[in-house]
Parts: sequence; C-alpha cells; structure tokens
Amino acid sequence: VVWVGLELRAGGLLEATAAELADALWDVGVELARATWVAGDDEALATALREVGTRADLCLVAGGLGPEVADRTAAGLARAAGVPLVEDGETLQRLQHRARAAGLALTDGERGQARVPRGARVLPNDVGTAPGLSLVLGGAVVYAVPGSPREARWFCQQYVTKDLGVRQEHVLRAVTLRCVWDPGVHLERELAGLGKDCPGVTVHVRAAYPEARVRIVARGPDASAAEALLATARQEALDRVGRWAFSSNGRSLPGVVADGLRDRGATLAVAESCTGGWLQKIITDEPGSSQVLLGGVVAYSNDVKVRALGVSQESLDRVGAVSGEVAGQMARGARERMGADWGLSTTGVAGPGGGTEAKPVGLVHLGMATKDWVRHRELRLRGDRESVRQGAAMHALLWLLEEMTPARY
Amino acid sequence: VVWVGLELRAGGLLEATAAELADALWDVGVELARATWVAGDDEALATALREVGTRADLCLVAGGLGPEVADRTAAGLARAAGVPLVEDGETLQRLQHRARAAGLALTDGERGQARVPRGARVLPNDVGTAPGLSLVLGGAVVYAVPGSPREARWFCQQYVTKDLGVRQEHVLRAVTLRCVWDPGVHLERELAGLGKDCPGVTVHVRAAYPEARVRIVARGPDASAAEALLATARQEALDRVGRWAFSSNGRSLPGVVADGLRDRGATLAVAESCTGGWLQKIITDEPGSSQVLLGGVVAYSNDVKVRALGVSQESLDRVGAVSGEVAGQMARGARERMGADWGLSTTGVAGPGGGTEAKPVGLVHLGMATKDWVRHRELRLRGDRESVRQGAAMHALLWLLEEMTPARY
Repeated sequence: VVWVGLELRAGGLLEATAAELADALWDVGVELARATWVAGDDEALATALREVGTRADLCLVAGGLGPEVADRTAAGLARAAGVPLVEDGETLQRLQHRARAAGLALTDGERGQARVPRGARVLPNDVGTAPGLSLVLGGAVVYAVPGSPREARWFCQQYVTKDLGVRQEHVLRAVTLRCVWDPGVHLERELAGLGKDCPGVTVHVRAAYPEARVRIVARGPDASAAEALLATARQEALDRVGRWAFSSNGRSLPGVVADGLRDRGATLAVAESCTGGWLQKIITDEPGSSQVLLGGVVAYSNDVKVRALGVSQESLDRVGAVSGEVAGQMARGARERMGADWGLSTTGVAGPGGGTEAKPVGLVHLGMATKDWVRHRELRLRGDRESVRQGAAMHALLWLLEEMTPARY
Repeated sequence: VVWVGLELRAGGLLEATAAELADALWDVGVELARATWVAGDDEALATALREVGTRADLCLVAGGLGPEVADRTAAGLARAAGVPLVEDGETLQRLQHRARAAGLALTDGERGQARVPRGARVLPNDVGTAPGLSLVLGGAVVYAVPGSPREARWFCQQYVTKDLGVRQEHVLRAVTLRCVWDPGVHLERELAGLGKDCPGVTVHVRAAYPEARVRIVARGPDASAAEALLATARQEALDRVGRWAFSSNGRSLPGVVADGLRDRGATLAVAESCTGGWLQKIITDEPGSSQVLLGGVVAYSNDVKVRALGVSQESLDRVGAVSGEVAGQMARGARERMGADWGLSTTGVAGPGGGTEAKPVGLVHLGMATKDWVRHRELRLRGDRESVRQGAAMHALLWLLEEMTPARY
C-alpha cells in the first residue's frame, strides 16, 4: 500500500485508512508486505511506484485523487508508467453531470480529476466524488483509491477483491465477529482447530483492545459453497466464543445495546465510579441514544454516591466503595432516581495507585438493577488505567446485552 | 522512517509512534519524505533498507529490537550492510546486570539483543530495555529505535536530534504550545509573520483536533542564543494566541485544569448533556482526579435535568434545553447538589440530527457556577457528532482554566 499526501501529520485519518485497507485485504487472504507514505512531488511518488512494480503483485495507492493541487496521484502514476495524462471523456461527463445536478460549474481542479494516465482503467466511485484508477506497473497491478477510510474500503470491496476473486478462480466469503476482550480468555485457544476438517476455512484472531475480532474467511468453488462453509464455521465459532461476541455485522457494542433497548422500548440509567463517564460517553456516541439513555451519575466521591445515588454509608464503611454490595446499590439508585427500566453501574480500582492486596488494580464490580432484582458481578481486568476503564465499560455493556438477550446465539 | 514488525494490524500503536517520530523530527526541522512499514523476513527488511540508502540522508528504523524471535531489525540491518552480527560485550554486560538486579537469568532472546551488526554504534536505552543502533547504509545515517512511542521519542531527542544539532553546527530549542481548536480562529493567520525579524525562528501550526499545536523552533549559534530567541518568540506567540493555549510543557488540558483545582484546594461538579460523559471521562483520565472531581450528572433527558439537577421546567418549556439559561441552571444544580466549589455544564446539538435553523448542529451552551455567580457562554462548533462533543468538552475546560487563572500569560 502506498499513501499519498500530507496525512502523516494527521495521524488519525491515516491510521484509520491503514486499518480499513489491511482489514479489507486480510478478509480475502492478502497479507500486506509493505505500506509506505510518500510526501513530496510527482517524482517522489513515481519513484516509490516504480520500486513497487519491481517487487509486489498488487499495490493500492490511497489518497491524492481529489481536486486539490496537492492531489497528484494520477500524475505520479503516469510518470511511473511513462505515459501522458489524457482527459477521459466519460469521467469528465460524469463530473459535469454531478456539478450540474448541484447547480455548480466544474472548477479547474475538479476537471483535472478527469485527467488520467493513458491506458488506465477508470473506476467509478458510487460513494464519493473522486474516481479511482487501475493500471499495470512492472509486475504489479496498481489500484488508486480515495484516502478516506470509508471510500477506500468500498473500492477494495467493489474492485480489488472482486478482481482477485476472479483471478484466483474461487469465491471468498468472510465475516468478523466482534468480541469483548477478556483477560481471562485466550480466544485463539478456544478456537483452535476450528475449520480443521474444512480446508477452505481460515480463522484469524486480532486484538483490538478493548475488543478482540475473530475473522472467518471461507473459500469455495462458487458462492453457495463458500457461503455454506462460512455459515458452518461461523456457528461453530459462536458455539465456542459466542459468550464474548456482540456483533457480526460491524455494529459496535454500545450500538447493539442501544438497538436492543430501543427494540424493547426500554430505558437505561447509569452510575459510574471508576469508568468516570466513559460508559455514558460510548453509549451517547450513538446518534439517537437519548431515546434509551435517560442519563446517569458519575459518582467519583463516596459523598456523591450517598447523596446522588442513595448508597448506604454503612455499606461504604463496612465493605468499601469497590464492592458488589455498593455496585448493586449504585445501579438501583440510578434506576430509581432517573425512573429507568435498567440501572447499570461500575466501581473499581483503575490505578495506577489505590490498589491493595485485597482490592488490587483491575478489580471492578459491576451492578445491575431492574424493577425485579439487583445483581452484581466481579471483574479482574489487566493493564493500565485506560485499559481497566475501557474494559470495565465494555463488560458492563456485554452483561446488559446478555441479560436482555439470553439466547442471542 | 521504516517500521518493522506486525504493528500494522495494531493500528493504534503504530499511529502513535508515527506521530511521535514525526513530531520529534519536525521540532528540529526535518521533514519526513517517506514512511514505510515492512512485514516479513530479514531479507524484506534488508531490501527496504538498501533502497533507503540510495535515497535518504537520515532514516529511523522503529521497532523490532526486542527479545522476541520476530524482532529482526539487527539482522535486517546487518544483511543490508553486508556485515555479520557480532556480540557486543558492553551491551551484554548491561543486559546481564539488569537481569541480575531483577533476580532473573538472561534468556536466549534477551542475550540476542546484544548481537549487533559489526561496526554499528550501540545506543544505550535509559527509558526501557532494548538498546538502539546506529550505522551508515549507503548515503543514509540509520538509527534503529524501539517501537514504543515513548521510547522512540526519547531516542530521537537523546541521539538523533543531538547528532543533527552537531552536524548542522547550530543549537536548536523548541517548544509546543497546546491550544484548544476553535473553528472561528485561524491560528496560522494570527501567528503570521511571527519571528519574521528573527531568522532563526520557525513556527508551525498543526491541527490535532480537538487541539491545535503551535511548535516554535529557534536555532542559534549556541544554547543561550537559541534559548533567548525561543523565549522571545514564545512570548510573542502567547500574546497573540495565548487565549487558546493551555500548556507548553506537554500537559493535557484536563491535566492542567485538575492541577489548577488541586493547587487551589477546590472541587468541581459537572452536568453534561450533549457531551454525554466525555467531559468527566477526560478529567478522570488523570490519576488522582477524585481529589478534585466530586462527580456529576449526565442529564441526557429533560426529565433528568429537572429531577437530578433542579433545572426549571418553565425554562425548558420557554427557551429549550439548548440555551444559556438551562446551561447555567445545570451548572448551579450540579455544584449545589454535589457540594462543590465549581459547577460546569454542557448542553448542545451534537447532531447528526436534531438541528433547526435557530439551533443548528454545533450550537453548544456552556454553564458555570460558583458560590457567587452563574454564567453561560455560547459556542458555534463544526464537524460531526464526535467533533462537536470533543470540542464542547475542551472549550468547557478552557473556560474553567480562564476563570481560575485570568492572567496566566
């Protein structure tokens, strides 16, 4: 993969694109051998692309396809291939059509997007404006795709992996199970030997803390064979690790929980100590979450636990704030005071200080309350402050999902 | 920069290291021309390094220096340079000494860390275990540094930029002003011409949403000249953009605010609507924040605003939840109910839905309360839901800092 442009400084975007492309390729069994960012002029890019042509079978060029002056991918490709840039009539028409539909005239920069290396295949873009390109450089098939993660992934799925599928004379189907990472569980071990009797199935486990992602890829002579293989492998994986899984359609855990509450017309109130607002933050990342999350309390001090949640001072004195008893009282207090169907709470030792032998860093108690019962659950998490806090929030949501949908697999 | 190993899949770490290295180099005026990840065996790495030797003046190799089998940087460097790996006595002694101090025997893998390309300079590591390496490959000076962001940065500062300083026969001093990003302000424009009369000063503005970072680099014939230049430029920058600045020592905004509260023996209570817990989350990222943040309420629904914060139903009906009046009431309610010195609140339209002409997406009201007064402030933010939420939390903290330390610059 070659990245073009100045994105190195805007780390987040680059990283997101890198992960998207790596995932999309991984799905179809392509391992990235090298990924390169190139800054500078056309010649710097052309040099990098010529090197690629001597080494790689497949190369993705991400970014540099927009209407800005700095967007020089087409020029770099043309220079590397030793061909001129020519205006592609069909692409120009499409760009003009789009501009007219928006009531605008085509700018020079936009018109420049129709200039492509002679002989290149233009790849129409259904999810954005910049068209992609494909051409052969030395021994490599090169695909130029937009730099935005969403568009890059679409191009991979729409063109690159389809072309690969044809070239490899088999059909690939893949699914990703998103799971909550549990320090006490070794997912690779739980999944060991899965698909052993199905030669077309491969399973990868990837840590993406606070998640673990299980990708299952099935390869068959045709679509229905690949799909059947995948369905079997998916079910076997869920039988083994479904307890930690929360989605197989890309949805986040807070999203799945918010959907579950909305489907049931149920509401949630939250009381957080160690997670300090993070649990509510990830729920409210979901647009429309105000329908299901009434609100909550961040009760960092014991005094606030008593005042704002009605936690018993006697319990705090006897068993301490980090205890199942107090977690349950927090969940009940949040539920009752906010008038919600479900109450959910966290209290724990996030570290780095504050741990003791009896209550070490990483000890977290979760509480849950409905109108019928109050429960608590103990976690032993690992890692630094951020990891403990993220892990506690994820496990709290996973538990709520479990209670809402006990037979989800 | 060349990255070694499998970190491409663990995107976060890679991105952090990339940003750290780019920053550390940027400080001393080095622009990254290319950054490459290499997967695979020694030969794949050696190929990449040989290419670097034909092209670059300076190359950093990050990662692959640990005791694991997959850590092959030394082998790749030796292969690229055409020299054997030899055991470095001094390094071995240091590793043995460290192991003995920890009461452990040296493993084979750890002992392997003492095997370095013949002729390479070994760079002792004061902040971790893996030593770094430096050698010349073709026309490039190559530094191999650990892959962790913290260690990589230390190596850059300790060795690479010092060597560059010597080679360039001048001394560099740099400072980064961390600022809150404000959509209504163009920091580059505010800082235009700064250092114009001081030829040794350069200023870069970098977006790192929700922050903007202003880096000032001063270059002088000796340390005292560089420091004097830097002090003047720093003050001029603060005179122009100090309103948005919160630290020049690397400290985060929540950290600076927590320090400020702690120094004053003051406490804070928070009421969040649109930020949904994020404001409290970033404050509680700071270890020990329980001393200053008593807690708070996430009041996503109007009902909770009334019940848990004492917001007036009449105000909600008359001016709506996204209003200065309600923001003030939320801050006052949080302060009074939690018994804190300061109350701070957010209410706004984070989007993507819910905007109107009068209250568009991005409109946020902040509230603040002390025992003496209640105030509110309006923000017009831009971007998607996440950006609006992050921006609102940062501006709330910046305002609190402003009130606590009106004359901080």
